[in-house]
Amino acid sequence: MNCELISVGTEILLGDILNTNAQYLSKQLALLGVSVMHQCTVGDNKERLLSSLDSAFKRNDAVILTGGLGPTPDDLTKEVCAEFFSKALLLDKGILSDIEKYFLNKNIVMPESNKKQALVIEDSIVLRNKNGTAPGFILEENGKALIILPGPPKEMQPMFEEYVKPYFKSKTHEVILSHNIRTFGIGESVMAEKVADLLESSNPTVAPYAKSGESLLRVTAKAENEEKAEKLLSETIEIIKARLGDYIYGIDCDSIEQVVVSMLKERHQTVAFAESCTGGLCSKRITDISGASDVFHCSVVSYSNDIKHSVLGVSEYLLEKYTAVSEEVAMQMAEGVKKLAGADYGVSVTGYAGPGDDPLVGTIYICVHSDKKTRVKKLVTAHKGNNCRDYNRHVAASNAFDLLRYSILEDS
Amino acid sequence: MNCELISVGTEILLGDILNTNAQYLSKQLALLGVSVMHQCTVGDNKERLLSSLDSAFKRNDAVILTGGLGPTPDDLTKEVCAEFFSKALLLDKGILSDIEKYFLNKNIVMPESNKKQALVIEDSIVLRNKNGTAPGFILEENGKALIILPGPPKEMQPMFEEYVKPYFKSKTHEVILSHNIRTFGIGESVMAEKVADLLESSNPTVAPYAKSGESLLRVTAKAENEEKAEKLLSETIEIIKARLGDYIYGIDCDSIEQVVVSMLKERHQTVAFAESCTGGLCSKRITDISGASDVFHCSVVSYSNDIKHSVLGVSEYLLEKYTAVSEEVAMQMAEGVKKLAGADYGVSVTGYAGPGDDPLVGTIYICVHSDKKTRVKKLVTAHKGNNCRDYNRHVAASNAFDLLRYSILEDS
Repeated sequence: MNCELISVGTEILLGDILNTNAQYLSKQLALLGVSVMHQCTVGDNKERLLSSLDSAFKRNDAVILTGGLGPTPDDLTKEVCAEFFSKALLLDKGILSDIEKYFLNKNIVMPESNKKQALVIEDSIVLRNKNGTAPGFILEENGKALIILPGPPKEMQPMFEEYVKPYFKSKTHEVILSHNIRTFGIGESVMAEKVADLLESSNPTVAPYAKSGESLLRVTAKAENEEKAEKLLSETIEIIKARLGDYIYGIDCDSIEQVVVSMLKERHQTVAFAESCTGGLCSKRITDISGASDVFHCSVVSYSNDIKHSVLGVSEYLLEKYTAVSEEVAMQMAEGVKKLAGADYGVSVTGYAGPGDDPLVGTIYICVHSDKKTRVKKLVTAHKGNNCRDYNRHVAASNAFDLLRYSILEDS
Repeated sequence: MNCELISVGTEILLGDILNTNAQYLSKQLALLGVSVMHQCTVGDNKERLLSSLDSAFKRNDAVILTGGLGPTPDDLTKEVCAEFFSKALLLDKGILSDIEKYFLNKNIVMPESNKKQALVIEDSIVLRNKNGTAPGFILEENGKALIILPGPPKEMQPMFEEYVKPYFKSKTHEVILSHNIRTFGIGESVMAEKVADLLESSNPTVAPYAKSGESLLRVTAKAENEEKAEKLLSETIEIIKARLGDYIYGIDCDSIEQVVVSMLKERHQTVAFAESCTGGLCSKRITDISGASDVFHCSVVSYSNDIKHSVLGVSEYLLEKYTAVSEEVAMQMAEGVKKLAGADYGVSVTGYAGPGDDPLVGTIYICVHSDKKTRVKKLVTAHKGNNCRDYNRHVAASNAFDLLRYSILEDS
C-alpha cells in the first residue's frame, strides 16, 4: 500500500513554519508498512490543491492532507476535497456542539466563523478533534482513501493515533515493528563495521544512524503478527548486544539522560552538576525528565573563576596554574558540588565551547566524582568555527551523562 | 519569478530526518521576491525524480534540488539531472583536488567512491563546496534555471548564501526587505487589534505571528532599491513602536535573552539565576549567547527544599508555611542568589511545570531582585496535561527574562 502526503499551507511555502507533520506521518506510516513515495506542499489555493490531489490519486492508494481546516476564508482544504469527489458539505450537530464546548471551556464566546468547522464531508468518517476545533475526515472512494487532518501537530498527532493508525492497520496484513538500539561513545562507521554482516540482512533489516554525536541502530522486522515480528527482532538484538556491549545505553529510550535518571532511581542515588561551558544544559536536560527530582536536587553554573572558587571551593592556586579548563579544576568542581549538594555523584563540565577557530575550541574536561572513584575524561570535538557552540555544548553534556552512566555501572 | 523545491532523499520519506532545507530555502527565496508554489520530496529513484523534474519545470522558472549528491551508488541526483537535460558528466580536476584536500585535512585516505563527486554537469556553473565534498550546480537551459545543492544544511546553506542568492538577485528587479518586531507579554490577538489598520496595508505588509508564548509582527516592503524599501519600513515601524511601546523587546533580534545580555553589557551589570522548575533552562538560554560571560557568572538550580535553604538561604519556616511555590520563597531565592553571586540582579523561578492535570500545574512565581526594587510576577499558563512540561518551562524562562528586562529599564 502506498500513500502520498500533501501539506497545505502558504505559511509553509513562505518558510514561516517548519513542516514537522511530514516527518511524523512518514515515520508512522513506515512503521505501518505503508510506503510514502512523495511528500508535497501547496498553498491555500484551489487550483493548485485540485491539481495536487489529481496527481496524488493517480499514483497512490491513499492520500493524507494536513492543514487548511481553520475557520477563516483562506482555509479551503475541506471545500476543495469535497469538490474533488463531488461531495456535499453538511452541518454536523455533534461536531458543532464539540466546538461550542471547546470555547465554553476556555470562557470565550465562539466566533461566528468557527461554525464553518462543523461542516462535514458527505459519506465520510468524521474524526473528532479533542485538542482543537477542526474535525478530520476519512473518505473512501473507488477503492482509494482520502484522509484529512488538521495542521497543528498537537491536534493532528492524537487524531492520527486514535483514528488513522487503526484504519491503516485494518487495511494491511502484515506487521512491521522496529526497535532502536542507542549507543554512545562509538562512531557510526565503527559501529557499522562491528555489525557489517547484519546490515546485509533483509528481515529484520538493520540500519545505522548518527545524530548529535550519538549513533543508533534501527532493527526492523516484518511478520504476519506482532509475536513473530518480536521474535525476529529479539534474536538480532541479542547478537548486536553481544557485539556492542556497554556502548549500548538503551533500547527504545528517548535519551541518555532518561537512562541515567532510571539508573539512579533504581539505586536510590542522587547527582549534582557543576557546569561551566555547558552553562546549565546538563541540568536542563536532566530536568526535562519528569520525576528527575527524585535523583537531582542541585546544580551550580559557575561561569567565572570567582564562582568556581567561592561557591564550589576550587583552589585559586589551581585556577591560576592550570586555568579553568583543566583536569585539576574539573576534579575540584565535581568534588565541590557533590559536597555542597550532599549528592552521591558530583559531575563537572569545563571547556571551550566556542564560537571561533581558536585551537582550544572544542576542548572539554568532564569529571564524575563519587565516594568510590574519581573519573576524568578529556574530550576534543572536531567542531570549530562560527556555528560550533551549540554542538560542542550538546556533546559535552551528552558525554557527562555517559561518563556518569559508566561510573554508576562500575560502582555498583 | 517562481521556483519549486525538490528535496531528494529516501531518508526524508521514511521520516528519519526532518526536512529543514525546504523551510530555509523558502524563507530565503521569499526575501528575494521569488515565489515558491510547490515543495516536494522524492526518494533516490530515477523514474520518480525524472517525473518530478518534468512537472516542476512545466510550472516554474527555476527549480532547486537538494540532496542525493553523496558518493554512494544510491545518490543519483546529478546523474538524473544531466540525463534530463541531455548533458554529459565531466571530470573536474579543480573539484577533485578540493575533495582530495578535504580528506587530507582530516587525515583520512580519500575513499575511491568520492571520485564520483568530482564529476560535473557539462555547461553548468559549478559551485565549490567549502564544507563538504559534493559540489553544487547552476544550469541554465531554455530560459529556465536548475540549481542543485548538497543535502546537509551545513553544506547547503553557505553554498546558497555565496552563489545562489547573488544569482537570484541578478535576475530580479525589485528588492524585498523584512523586519521582525518582537514583543513579549501581549497576546497575538490583542497585538493584532492594536495595529488592525496596518494589517490591511499592501506595501509594506504587516503580518502577526505567535510562537512559544511570544508574538511578533513582520513588516515587509517591496521597492526598486534597498534604500526605498528601508524608508517604507521605517515609517511603519515607527507607528508600531508608538502603539506597542515597551511590549516590544527588539527588532530583528534572535531572542529575549540576547536583548537582556546586551542591556546588561551596556550597563556593566550582572545577573544570577536561582532556578527551581526551569531546572537550568534560564542559565542554558543566557549562555546560548556567545559573550554571556561578561554579564552572567553564576546560577543555582535548587530542585529541592533542602538546597533552597542550604545554598540560597531560604527560610525553612517560609518553605513550610507557604511551600516552595510561593511569592515569599521566590523572593528569598532571588535575594539569596544575588548575594551568593555578588550580582546586580538576582532572578528566581519556582513553580509547577507539570506534566499532569493538577490544578496547580502551570502556576509559576518569578522574582527579580535588585538593590533598588524587588519585583514578583505570578504566572498562570493555561497549559496542563501530558505534554505541557516543555511549554511551561520555556514560557517561565521567557517571562523571567522579560521581568528582568523591565527591571533593568525601570532601574536605569
